[in-house]
Amino acid sequence: MDIEIGILGATGFTGCELVGLLLRHPRAKIAWLSSESQPGTAYGKVYPQFLGRLSPAVEKMRSFEDVKNTRPDVVFSCLPHGASAECAAPFLANGKTIVIDLSADFRLKDAKAYAEAYAHTHPLPHLLPESRYGLSEVHAAAIKGAKLIANPGCYPTSALLPLFPLIRDGIVSPDGIIIDSKSGVSGAGKKATETTHYVNANESVMAYGVGDKHRHRWEIIEQLSLAAGRKLDLLFTAHLIPMERGILSTIYCDFAAGMDGAAADACLKKQYADSDFVRLREDFPRTGDVKHTNFCHIKSYQPAGSRKLIIVSVIDNMVKGASGQALQNMNIALGLPAALGLA
Amino acid sequence: MDIEIGILGATGFTGCELVGLLLRHPRAKIAWLSSESQPGTAYGKVYPQFLGRLSPAVEKMRSFEDVKNTRPDVVFSCLPHGASAECAAPFLANGKTIVIDLSADFRLKDAKAYAEAYAHTHPLPHLLPESRYGLSEVHAAAIKGAKLIANPGCYPTSALLPLFPLIRDGIVSPDGIIIDSKSGVSGAGKKATETTHYVNANESVMAYGVGDKHRHRWEIIEQLSLAAGRKLDLLFTAHLIPMERGILSTIYCDFAAGMDGAAADACLKKQYADSDFVRLREDFPRTGDVKHTNFCHIKSYQPAGSRKLIIVSVIDNMVKGASGQALQNMNIALGLPAALGLA
Amino acid sequence: MDIEIGILGATGFTGCELVGLLLRHPRAKIAWLSSESQPGTAYGKVYPQFLGRLSPAVEKMRSFEDVKNTRPDVVFSCLPHGASAECAAPFLANGKTIVIDLSADFRLKDAKAYAEAYAHTHPLPHLLPESRYGLSEVHAAAIKGAKLIANPGCYPTSALLPLFPLIRDGIVSPDGIIIDSKSGVSGAGKKATETTHYVNANESVMAYGVGDKHRHRWEIIEQLSLAAGRKLDLLFTAHLIPMERGILSTIYCDFAAGMDGAAADACLKKQYADSDFVRLREDFPRTGDVKHTNFCHIKSYQPAGSRKLIIVSVIDNMVKGASGQALQNMNIALGLPAALGLA
Amino acid sequence: MDIEIGILGATGFTGCELVGLLLRHPRAKIAWLSSESQPGTAYGKVYPQFLGRLSPAVEKMRSFEDVKNTRPDVVFSCLPHGASAECAAPFLANGKTIVIDLSADFRLKDAKAYAEAYAHTHPLPHLLPESRYGLSEVHAAAIKGAKLIANPGCYPTSALLPLFPLIRDGIVSPDGIIIDSKSGVSGAGKKATETTHYVNANESVMAYGVGDKHRHRWEIIEQLSLAAGRKLDLLFTAHLIPMERGILSTIYCDFAAGMDGAAADACLKKQYADSDFVRLREDFPRTGDVKHTNFCHIKSYQPAGSRKLIIVSVIDNMVKGASGQALQNMNIALGLPAALGLA
Repeated sequence: MDIEIGILGATGFTGCELVGLLLRHPRAKIAWLSSESQPGTAYGKVYPQFLGRLSPAVEKMRSFEDVKNTRPDVVFSCLPHGASAECAAPFLANGKTIVIDLSADFRLKDAKAYAEAYAHTHPLPHLLPESRYGLSEVHAAAIKGAKLIANPGCYPTSALLPLFPLIRDGIVSPDGIIIDSKSGVSGAGKKATETTHYVNANESVMAYGVGDKHRHRWEIIEQLSLAAGRKLDLLFTAHLIPMERGILSTIYCDFAAGMDGAAADACLKKQYADSDFVRLREDFPRTGDVKHTNFCHIKSYQPAGSRKLIIVSVIDNMVKGASGQALQNMNIALGLPAALGLA
Repeated sequence: MDIEIGILGATGFTGCELVGLLLRHPRAKIAWLSSESQPGTAYGKVYPQFLGRLSPAVEKMRSFEDVKNTRPDVVFSCLPHGASAECAAPFLANGKTIVIDLSADFRLKDAKAYAEAYAHTHPLPHLLPESRYGLSEVHAAAIKGAKLIANPGCYPTSALLPLFPLIRDGIVSPDGIIIDSKSGVSGAGKKATETTHYVNANESVMAYGVGDKHRHRWEIIEQLSLAAGRKLDLLFTAHLIPMERGILSTIYCDFAAGMDGAAADACLKKQYADSDFVRLREDFPRTGDVKHTNFCHIKSYQPAGSRKLIIVSVIDNMVKGASGQALQNMNIALGLPAALGLA
Repeated sequence: MDIEIGILGATGFTGCELVGLLLRHPRAKIAWLSSESQPGTAYGKVYPQFLGRLSPAVEKMRSFEDVKNTRPDVVFSCLPHGASAECAAPFLANGKTIVIDLSADFRLKDAKAYAEAYAHTHPLPHLLPESRYGLSEVHAAAIKGAKLIANPGCYPTSALLPLFPLIRDGIVSPDGIIIDSKSGVSGAGKKATETTHYVNANESVMAYGVGDKHRHRWEIIEQLSLAAGRKLDLLFTAHLIPMERGILSTIYCDFAAGMDGAAADACLKKQYADSDFVRLREDFPRTGDVKHTNFCHIKSYQPAGSRKLIIVSVIDNMVKGASGQALQNMNIALGLPAALGLA
Repeated sequence: MDIEIGILGATGFTGCELVGLLLRHPRAKIAWLSSESQPGTAYGKVYPQFLGRLSPAVEKMRSFEDVKNTRPDVVFSCLPHGASAECAAPFLANGKTIVIDLSADFRLKDAKAYAEAYAHTHPLPHLLPESRYGLSEVHAAAIKGAKLIANPGCYPTSALLPLFPLIRDGIVSPDGIIIDSKSGVSGAGKKATETTHYVNANESVMAYGVGDKHRHRWEIIEQLSLAAGRKLDLLFTAHLIPMERGILSTIYCDFAAGMDGAAADACLKKQYADSDFVRLREDFPRTGDVKHTNFCHIKSYQPAGSRKLIIVSVIDNMVKGASGQALQNMNIALGLPAALGLA
């Protein structure tokens, strides 16, 4: 039986990626696409790759007003934070729809951390306890049956997949972690800015959100504090590199007492040996190895004579870091095989 | 003795390129940089590559109002068409300053063609007869001593350097010429748009201004009509390709009766054997061969059994196609060696 | 029921693309992958994106000797020309297997043209009459039930999809056609050369195979001569541009007497109105619009006052220009829906 | 008076960059270019950007045998390590020539470290004490008058310019330093390999030489141990990103007791306030800001509540990281203004 799906804010990059993935999913049926900026416009005008691939009813985008009383099985929200929570609310209230939110609105349980990271108070803090953090491979049990799923940020996904089990199992110290991430430009979103201008982004690399400034740092801290069983702090630096998609995170952390590289490998193997989408590598992965896929490749390494563990983790920021993981979360929430339509 | 120079509209890409070139010129001295959008701002804030390389007085950009009564030896206008002619006027009137206009305002002698190409009437048509078209290698005699020089467009430069002598000397037919050009993204200018967004421009090629629609077509037609001694018509198609800078033009034309590839080579050799910046190649050139230089490399080829001549011509659109040729024109106008500070 | 599939020469770029596509096809089952350079090696070592996605038996690549007596339902040959025909022979002889050859070996019916284009005599000319040229949207009737399918070249696919019906229906003249194509670097194949070195290919565009020199020209000529009902000639120029994948062909041709842009549009509409993968555009397409898809987007345009038709056609050279069209041909040959597993 | 210059191994990327820089230097005169792989070949055949820009005698490359007894004022060696030392020897012995070695052969004073890093014993260890490490801004006094200058590696240059003074002055702890560097592909050299193939290098980022494995780590350690006055250790990880040129190093280190971000800024300001080529930034620099220049831009930052200092440093790996710094070292060695011909 078809799974009826609505997408809020379909004109952004994550919406576009999601439409492409849903067209390949054997059970998914797009019911509507909404856009606040271009309601009434054909989706194929915005993204010509979809010309003639959507039914006429779906092709013409609708406004939020026009869809808010519908009751699809699943709504994906690709709206910006703030707006996303507010537009998700009516669907959460209808007693049927599962909401998978790709914005940051339901990722942090701590509304104060949210206010600090996103510079506005949370619009609907009473919903925060209901949300499930959708790091699929780690939180699958909690996601199954959930009605509100906060889809993780792209950088957090790349960092948490290796770090969550390593900290939870006491292999690495919760203190002093440094995450140095490199991302393609699609992560900066669809808006044309000086930063995303080809002439500036091409043939150049820049650091941003250095150390303590990036919004995703709060998300990583909250999750790893959960893994550690106590509050921790860390440094995170993002870099923009000249490619469309992909994130590589290079992570430096200290071993807990008595632990070493073999213990790290064993922990990751235990967590991911049967994973659909996480692969442990013998060599160091490239983002090109996971481009346009929902996979995460990980390699951990202990330099000779060092008490540091270095981890390299790669994902496609648009798939595993956004729309692919969102679809995986839909599968899990509905009790379907996690990899359905994604492998 | 120093040549005092002002740059109108210095914050655009051609202004930036020009400042870089002038810093290497042994005689040039920048007197001021103007910007209508950011007067008072330090140039190094806009282009950090110039941090600490300009004198404090030059570093702080000035408004047009603030500079229009100055009398530098040379003013380069990097303003958009329309505005450029109007801002050039006071300098043309001061009896001293040479104006080199990088906009399209003085390229076309025919004000009707200008109105058609640029969709507005020419602001100062009475100045058109005074301007010299600055295709340096072809019109050097006319440029020497000129007070108003119209710097050629980037696409026209790549097409005219081979075609002007070939048509003037009757080697190829003036009819049926097809120019298929490929340009890097810097040619689209500094404005952040959907087209220049990295995610759209990267890993994609598109045609634009197809056939009869590109503004530079009028400029090529006027010059080649001059070369032919009669009005001609042609097709020109521009393409945007994922690189910062460079233009490659692939040109298809018919031989005039009795002419062939050897005649074409001889004509180009006669024109360019001693040229500072035009090189005739035995193999087909890449734009990478002229990147960040003022050179134009040309190869012409007659396919076996064909009456067509195929020409491939490459330049750096920001240097030979804009600021480098502008500086070369300054040298020529002032009676200096054309290659001074440019080789 | 599963379709058992073998891939000869799986380590090249087209083999890699094909494996990725087959993993999504609902009926395809890879039986073996062969490699002459690395038999015994795990495919996931060569292409880490497939780590843990193939069964152990398939994962380990086999030699030609080791597979030549197997009888899968379909064999795709991704071997180089010359070798491809010879390795296809035993499968063609086994009375069961359909061979889809991605090399050039069976594209030309004329063995003399083959020898001229590929600089060696055809190894098995007696098989040429049996092969079907797999331009899926044009030759579907002939492909259905075929045992030997010659998968078209990438440039020919982009050029023939618009030109074949326009010439067959007498809309454009068979004479004087100029095809100016721009391709990403994957078309140059997997071998590391000076041309494919990042520093040379990046930030540069070059022409190659200019006019009469490219191998694909013979293929385009043979097909269009078929469409015209008589021998024709044409100019074709290939360009290498800095992107991984995609071809844009800009085609210049003359209208036949009495024909015009509206007639061209009507012809293309008649041919492709119900096509799975060809889309007629109102605006000019970008290769980015078809990236990683099996689609071809086409726009034709008659410049004002001109008797020339300009066509812009875009495909992904690795999908529609190679492995995607090969899979589409498999579907057609087996009587399955052409778009199965490809949409 | 002209400075006569020879270049050993001119066909590599650093040789090419050096020739371009020397053509702009007001005093430099290239006497010869040597190549072991292509002696007798015209340089403009290898690098068409130099077509017609070198005198015929220089244009035709010579063999080492043919130049080893010449006595130019300066020889730059762009040969690979191992070969470089051996070919430098006759020039060092002639009593006149200054040798500037762009290979790694004279960078490490410790021949054991050299053997460990480069996996062969040093060919001429007795010369090591004579060499001066050419980190221009830091070691200018030692470079002046030197006869043998070891030009620093690209990664070390980006890391040492900020770290050397900070450690020498006791601002940051010598222990626990982490250097996470991102480099363009030109750093991998001219050889066509799987790694430098456009399709692999483009749209992908990879880590290599992770932690303790990169040869440049020994060089950084030796220099920083010198700055610290004692042996230290550190982690260094290199990344290859899809661009031609540029290195960005993100450096994480601990403050020494009592030190903070203001102390770091003051130290760097004292060191570089009057520097020709080092600029201290208020915002975080991009590699695009220094592309094709000899500048290094640095920003240091102390995250709120943290005892870590984060430094971002950018250079052009081909200019400041290789040929530009080599030319700067020539200027310094000869007592000329350090920036002559480079600004």
